[in-house]
This record gives sequence, structure tokens and C-alpha cells, in this order.
Amino acid sequence: MAEVLAALRSLMAAHSPHLDALIVPSEDYHQSEFVSERDKRRAFVSGFTGSQGLALITKVEARLWTDGRYFLQAEQQLSDQWKLMRIGEDPAVDVWMADNLPRGAAVGVDPWCVSVATAEKWEHAFAKKQQKLVQTTTNLVDKVWKNRPAAKINPVIVHPLEFAGRSVAEKLKNLRGQLANGSAHGIIITALDEVAWLYNIRGSDVPYCPVVHAYAIVTSNSALLYVDKKKVSSQVKSSLEEIGVEVRDYGAVSSDVVLLASNRLGTLSALKKFHEVLKDGGIVSGETDINRKPTSEEEEKKGELIWVDPGSCCYALYSILDIDKVLLQQSPLALAKALKNPVELEGLKNAHIRDGAAVVQFLAWLDKQMKESYGAPGYFAEVVGANKTKHQETIKLTEVTVSDKLEGFRASKEHFRGLSFPTISSVGPNAAIIHYLPQAETCAELDLDSIYLFDSGAQYLDGTTDITRTVHFGKPSAHEKACYTAVLKGHIALGNAGFPNGTIGQTLDILARIPLWKDGLDYRHGTGHGVGSYLYVHEGPQVISFRPRTPNVPLQASMTITDG
Amino acid sequence: MAEVLAALRSLMAAHSPHLDALIVPSEDYHQSEFVSERDKRRAFVSGFTGSQGLALITKVEARLWTDGRYFLQAEQQLSDQWKLMRIGEDPAVDVWMADNLPRGAAVGVDPWCVSVATAEKWEHAFAKKQQKLVQTTTNLVDKVWKNRPAAKINPVIVHPLEFAGRSVAEKLKNLRGQLANGSAHGIIITALDEVAWLYNIRGSDVPYCPVVHAYAIVTSNSALLYVDKKKVSSQVKSSLEEIGVEVRDYGAVSSDVVLLASNRLGTLSALKKFHEVLKDGGIVSGETDINRKPTSEEEEKKGELIWVDPGSCCYALYSILDIDKVLLQQSPLALAKALKNPVELEGLKNAHIRDGAAVVQFLAWLDKQMKESYGAPGYFAEVVGANKTKHQETIKLTEVTVSDKLEGFRASKEHFRGLSFPTISSVGPNAAIIHYLPQAETCAELDLDSIYLFDSGAQYLDGTTDITRTVHFGKPSAHEKACYTAVLKGHIALGNAGFPNGTIGQTLDILARIPLWKDGLDYRHGTGHGVGSYLYVHEGPQVISFRPRTPNVPLQASMTITDG
Repeated sequence: MAEVLAALRSLMAAHSPHLDALIVPSEDYHQSEFVSERDKRRAFVSGFTGSQGLALITKVEARLWTDGRYFLQAEQQLSDQWKLMRIGEDPAVDVWMADNLPRGAAVGVDPWCVSVATAEKWEHAFAKKQQKLVQTTTNLVDKVWKNRPAAKINPVIVHPLEFAGRSVAEKLKNLRGQLANGSAHGIIITALDEVAWLYNIRGSDVPYCPVVHAYAIVTSNSALLYVDKKKVSSQVKSSLEEIGVEVRDYGAVSSDVVLLASNRLGTLSALKKFHEVLKDGGIVSGETDINRKPTSEEEEKKGELIWVDPGSCCYALYSILDIDKVLLQQSPLALAKALKNPVELEGLKNAHIRDGAAVVQFLAWLDKQMKESYGAPGYFAEVVGANKTKHQETIKLTEVTVSDKLEGFRASKEHFRGLSFPTISSVGPNAAIIHYLPQAETCAELDLDSIYLFDSGAQYLDGTTDITRTVHFGKPSAHEKACYTAVLKGHIALGNAGFPNGTIGQTLDILARIPLWKDGLDYRHGTGHGVGSYLYVHEGPQVISFRPRTPNVPLQASMTITDG
Repeated sequence: MAEVLAALRSLMAAHSPHLDALIVPSEDYHQSEFVSERDKRRAFVSGFTGSQGLALITKVEARLWTDGRYFLQAEQQLSDQWKLMRIGEDPAVDVWMADNLPRGAAVGVDPWCVSVATAEKWEHAFAKKQQKLVQTTTNLVDKVWKNRPAAKINPVIVHPLEFAGRSVAEKLKNLRGQLANGSAHGIIITALDEVAWLYNIRGSDVPYCPVVHAYAIVTSNSALLYVDKKKVSSQVKSSLEEIGVEVRDYGAVSSDVVLLASNRLGTLSALKKFHEVLKDGGIVSGETDINRKPTSEEEEKKGELIWVDPGSCCYALYSILDIDKVLLQQSPLALAKALKNPVELEGLKNAHIRDGAAVVQFLAWLDKQMKESYGAPGYFAEVVGANKTKHQETIKLTEVTVSDKLEGFRASKEHFRGLSFPTISSVGPNAAIIHYLPQAETCAELDLDSIYLFDSGAQYLDGTTDITRTVHFGKPSAHEKACYTAVLKGHIALGNAGFPNGTIGQTLDILARIPLWKDGLDYRHGTGHGVGSYLYVHEGPQVISFRPRTPNVPLQASMTITDG
């Protein structure tokens, strides 16, 4: 680790302009929460492997900011050269930089790894002492990362209508209506799940997330997908072109944004004919009314703006644009994707029935194992007359072995496509490390004296799941029972809450906490999050959290959201 | 009413520049919630007498915006020439003006009657269509208001330390520390309760509010009070000067703000000697260390800014300043005043004991009357062996007569100084008019079939109260019982809530609503508000409301706040 910091500091000194500090965010070029191995730059430089965090390297210091879910893990993983900054307790990174970096300091960041909103927040904080945010032209971490994993060429897969429930044509139609309402002539889409959702495609570029590393640009007369063309089979390419989606090189997005900014971005290649036919008023297929000419009303509204989501769009692409011509607003796809269609809702239910069965199978198996091998009294009644074999499985029940077993039960179910996030499988005190990831070599063994908690989920073609259960195979202590009961009360209070239209999740968050607060307890994270349809297990824009969000989206019927 | 609108429209047409619209806010020159009779300009022009509202008069229209507490009342009071705009349902006034007034429209307002925050919000909305906010040099309503009540000359009274609990010297010391921390060399204080609290003075310029029409300016070496000097006896003047507070003419505030802006505001008259002694390092009295020289640390921090509270400072005074030299932030006195000192807390308890006794006396009296005169079964048990006289009081129990009786019980208590707001005394459907004010001629009579609700409070030298009770003297319906029970559940849930430091009132608001929401019920107002110490019955900055506030102040120990 020391060499990495030294190497980075050399690059910072050699950079033009010279950098007083370098920010290494967790995010990839799409501001993803989960990133591929080769995008784990922050973990590489700091050693801290949690999903959320930001590393700051100055000439003499290295600090890592992360949130309450990861305080314990970060303390364990960070070396002496790093100082942990606890979000919510220590000064925020922008405040810290403004207060502690010298007047006029230059702070470098790869502008592809940071959102517009975040970069602007930093710049705002920097103004006070004439500090400045410097966009590095290359990623300095990549330069010092000798064994950086190579990019994988995973195929783009068409997500069929029987699971997606809504055609690309229909989604494009709605999106174009929203662009017109926002006086925008185009939108840059950088969030991987939005690209996947809009074009009904899936992939496997990011562990646990069935997405493709890709950008999209949509205008009133084009729909472009920027992706490594090696990932797109000719069959997939054809099916995309059939619905008016043109595939371009991943790296072409910058130059196309330049064209978009000057309103010169046209449909160049194979789709010219498609759009020419459209211009003649012809019908290409049953769905091409979606790519129809704009109505006069829309034409009037058609604006000069380019829609950019400040929370997800990278600063690099935004910086190309004339800021007076930007509509800086949450992507309309965020809400569109969150409002599940009937097919998605039905799929979610079915996925949960299969997933729930797997979890019950796992619990029954675990109960039996704990009984036979560890002498637990057991919860599940024996089948009367069952042949009580004395055979004991030789498996040692550790956090890793049981979570593998759980994955096995899930993998046997129809439409299973992998886990939706790394399984949190934790015994006793480990259960207090909110995003604990057991390692085979060091993980704890289950016993009769400790709580066992698992928080896990899976990706199925028809839905994504996320389930947490807390169990005990012996006699829980009075404190454990009190805590469990308080959490359960909170779950029930939130689950039972009725509320009027327009209520935001932030309002409901307290319902899950009140029983805990009564006992002086709390938890350092939000309460509920949206869940994708065979997409991200954490999906916005709705959320149930005490933290204010911008925009603060009201909960609506047909949204999916977790309780606790 | 028609003549008033016509006269105003003539003045608007004759104004330079010509005005397309005129805004008449509810607020006086101090952005007060309750205002004196001569400041009820919005009520005068519109006929709507509720405490909150905004009138907008265009060339052809007149619209009145008010909040949910007043929808029913406004519908009853507004004439045909007025259109009611329901806050939360109809477009907000700034949105409406921007959308409906012509491009480039000039919208007039008396800049003394509007806060910085509100004026800036309007100007922001106006930018889209190059509309502009015009500060009228006189108040146009005053010009057409023929029988406008004259200003009353009520004496300024010193609020003794035995009730205030903290000396002016100590308050000034803390304030100056906060100015230094904010890099401010001075502050303009316009909120009447802040002026009264800071200088430990009270008055009777505004019904229900023991305040004085006054401004204050505090710098590191001066403390100024702007008030009609006729209100200040020589004795009060002396006692103020003794603690370093200089009394100036109410009208001098503008010219003094000009001096303050250029750092030329000194202590001119009687206090020169006071400050000279200070400069020599001398001690004038036991408390003058408060007016001590700043420490070197403070000197370093001593900034060039002038602190202005955007929510309470009038636009007129703010407009005098160089905006680059303004610290636009909530007044530090808002929080300082909200954190009650031990004497105030003790006073509050004592005031509530007396006030509670008055309310119980009232309820017992009412119960007896309803029994004797209306045949109610009665709640309070008769004293055994009491001489059951058949004598019936001849009083007719109406909303007004019983509320007068309640005031009578209160008036008999020690330290009583009047009511803290107009008593809401309401029978049956009137109880649904949230700020209902019964009129003697038209008010309802109590009966055995209706709910009776009173919401009332008093000003005592040692505290301010605000109590609501809902009673029924016959058999309430199942629906009434269900509603009452849901509200009571909400009260209890909120009252029982424990919560961690840093929790804002907005977070707690839902606790009072959840039982109502379950039955599809809700109420169109916040849940709890701060209460002053012999000051305003509605006091910030803390509040329990679903509406987001800026800043969103966490609840703290020693704040007072109502539950429901």
C-alpha cells in the first residue's frame, strides 16, 4: 500500500497543474454503486473493500470517508497510513478539503468517476479559498495499478418482453414525451440500469448486477447505445436496430455529446433508412408510431436543452456542454423504471415465491444441521414417524459454508441468474458489521450462543430479491430478545402504515425506529430501498431513509420498496 | 370593498413605474404573525380576517392565498371580487404570478412588509419572464385606508430578571460571540419577539403579543433600540442605558443601517462615556465585562459582514446593504430564545399549573351548567352531601359567553396579562374551522349533540400557554369517538416518543398522524410549535410539522414545544 501512495504522489507532483490532493471515488464511469473488479480503484488504493467510500490522498495524508454501515469494516481493513473519516460524525469531505487544504490548492479527480452534483458541491466548497477541482485527463490510479484486471467481454442479452413487460418503443415514446415537456431535445443516460431498462437489455459486466457497461443518448429522432461492439452479437444488433436503436462504440460517447451539444447528432448508419421511412410517414413495424413525427404541440415545446441527471451523469460529459443549454434534473427514467408495470409486479411476486421457498429450505436445513451436529433443540417439528437417522453431515457450519448452501438452494430455482449482492452471513458480533463479508479462511462458525444473521438476495429473470433474517439456535439473551422485538415492532409499524398520496419515504422512516429509540438503540443506515426488476437490488428514486434526498420523490403505488 | 380595489388600481396605474399587480402581505414591518389593527392591511383590502394570507390585486383580478387552517373561513369572508387560492392545492403565489402576469410585468410591494427570503423567491420566479418586483416608496393600502386606526403609544416595560432569567448583558455577550463566529460585525434584528427577548423588555403594541414595535442593531461595541421614544419613560430609558442599550427613534433605523453598512455606526449620545470607560479597560458595573474588549481571537475573526435573518428581516432594510457584505442566515437569537433558561422553564411550569387550574375550573363550571340548564348527565361527581340548589344561572351557553367565562377564570390567576391568542371556541361543525373566531351576534350555542372544542391560552409574566380540549356533554357518535381516539393516540405516540440528538421536528410529525391516516383522516396544519416565555405563543425555530423548514433545527433539551 505504501508504494501505491508513493507512486500516486509522484504522479500528483508531476501532473500539470501540480496536484495538492487526489480524490479517488468508489464509483465507476457510470456512478454505479456496485462496480466491476477493474473499477475498484478506491479499494485498490486504500485496502478498504466496502461498497461505499471515498479516498483522499494529499501530499502527506490519506483519508477515507465511509458511512455507518462500514465503520467497523474500515477500521479493520485500513492500514496505519489511512485515517478513517466517519460520515455523519467527522467533517464531510468537501468541508474537510476546504478547511484543511491550502488556499489555492489544486484537487485532482478523474471526471468520469464523479457526478455533476458531487463535483459542483466540491467546487462550491472550494470557492472560499480559491481552491480548484482539476479534471485529470487520465485516471492516475490506473497508471499505478500494475495488475489491474482486464475488461471482460460479456455478451449483451436481449431481455424479453415476457419479463420486461413494456417494449422499448413504448419506453422511448414516453421518454420523448418527457423530453418535450422539459423543453429538451436530447438526454444523456449514463446510469447502467437506466440504459439496460430503456433498451430491454441485460449483461454481466458488473458482479450481482445484470447490466452492460454502456451509455445511451436519446433525441426526438434517434436512440443510441454506446457499448463495446464486441459484446453485441449480430443477432442482438439486428434486434436493436429493428426497434430503432443504433449501436455505437463505447468510446464514441464523448464526441457524440459534442455533436449533440451543437444539435448535429444525427442517425448516421444503418438506421438512416429507418428514419427516412419515418419521415415519409411510412410505417416500419407495428410499433414505429413511437418513432413518429412530433405533433405540432410537441414541436412547439421542443427545446434546445439537453437533459442531464446531476446525480448520475459524470462530470466529464457534462463539462462538454454549454451549461445554459442543460436541463439539470433527475432522469425521467429513474421514476419510469421505479413504477413497475403489471408484468414486472407479477414477476416480482413469482420470484419471491421461489426465493422464499429457497430461504425456508435453507432454514429447515440449517435447523436440522444445528440440531444434529450442535445439539440445538430445533424449531421445525420432526415429521411424525420419520426415520431418525443418526447420520451427521460432516460439513462444518461456518458463515461461508452456510451461505454457500443458501446460494445452492436459490440456484436450483427457475430463472435464477446469480446473487443480487454479496451475501452477508454473520455470526454474533459480525452481525453488527452492517455489510459484513465473511472470508472462508477467517470466518466464524455458527454456535448455540450467538445470533446468526443473513442478508441476501438473488437475481431471477423475472425479479430481484433482498431478504434478511435473524435467527438463534440456542437461548437468546434478554438483550438480544429486546433488540429483536424492537426491530420487529419497527418492521410491523412500517409495514402497517397507511399514508396519503404525496408522502415521501423520509416521513415514514421514523416508524421503524421509534421502538428502538425507546431503548436508546438505532441503526446507522436507511430503512428501505427500491428494488429493480432483474436489475439493481438498490434502486431509486424512492427510498425510506432519515436522510433528505433531492428530489424527494413521493412513494407511489406500483413502486417496490423494502421494509427494514 | 369594490371602492378599495378601484382606488388601489388607480394608485397602481399612477405609480411610477406603472404596476401590473400589487401584493398585500399579512405581515407588518417586522414580519409578525399577529399584527396590530392598523397593520391589518391584507384584511382591510380583502375582508378575510385570518392570521395568514396574501392578497394579490391585478388590473382585473383579486386573489387571496391562505393555508388549510383558513379555507373554510376565507370562503365565508371573501366577496365575489376575490378568488380563494388554497395553499398546497392551487399554484403558489410566485408560480401563479410568473405564469399568469404578462411578460415584463411590474409587481409592487411595500418592501417593509416582505421578508428577504420571500422577496427573493418572488424575484427568482419573475426572472423567467423578465417580470420585476417593484418596491413602492409608500404603502398604497395606507393611502386608500380612510379610517385606519392610529398608532397607540403603549409604554415599554422592563421585564424583570426574576422572570427573564438571563440578563441583557449576558445575552449581548453570547450574541457578540456568535457574530464573531459568523465573521459579522453587526446584526439587524427586526423580529419583535427577538428585540423584546434580547433587551428584556415587553409592551402591548400587538394584541396577544407582549411586544413593542421596535428594531435593534447590535455591533461589537453598541446595542441600539429603535422605538417610538414616546413609549419609553425616562426611568426605562435610564435602565436600558445602564446596561449599554441606546434608545433611538423608530424611524432612524434606515439611516442607521446605511451607517452600519459603511461601518460608520457608532454609539453617539449618552453611551459614549459608557464605551469610553470600557476602552480604558475600566469596569462600569458587575456586568460590563459583557461589553468588554474583544479578545485577539475574536478580533481576528471579526468580520466585515452584517448578519441578516432572511426569514424575518424586511426587504427594505436588506436592500440598503451591499449583498456581498451580508451574512444571510437565521438570527442567532431565534435559537437562543428557544432554549429556555432554568428560570423560564420554572416559570412555564408555574404558569401552566395556574392556567391548568383555570381550565379545570372552567370545565367543572361548564359541566355544571350543562347539567343544570341543558340536562347533561355530567362528568364531575357531586360532592357527597352538597346542598343541591335548584338555582340555575341564566347565562345562555354560547361559544362567546363560555369563552368569556374561561378568560375570567384565567384573569383571576396571578401574573395574568391577557390571552395569548384569540380563543377558538367552537361548537359542532365550527370546530372544523381550524382558527374559528366566534362572533357574539352569530355564534352557536352549546348543546348535548355536538362536540365543543376550545383552543386557548394566556400570557402570564412567567410564561405563555396554549391548550386545546375537545369535550362532549351528551353521547358522541361512533365517528366522533373514532376521530377523538385517533387524535388521542397520535398525541400519546408523539408524547411518548424518545429520539436521538439531532432529530428534527419534521421527523416526528408523522407519529401524530399515523392513527389518523389509518382511517383516511388527516389535518391540514402542523403538529407542534415552540412557545415563548411571556412572548409569542408561536415561536420558532423548532417546529413539529410535515413541512420542511430552512433551517431545519433539531429539537433540543430546554426547548418548549406543543404536542398537537
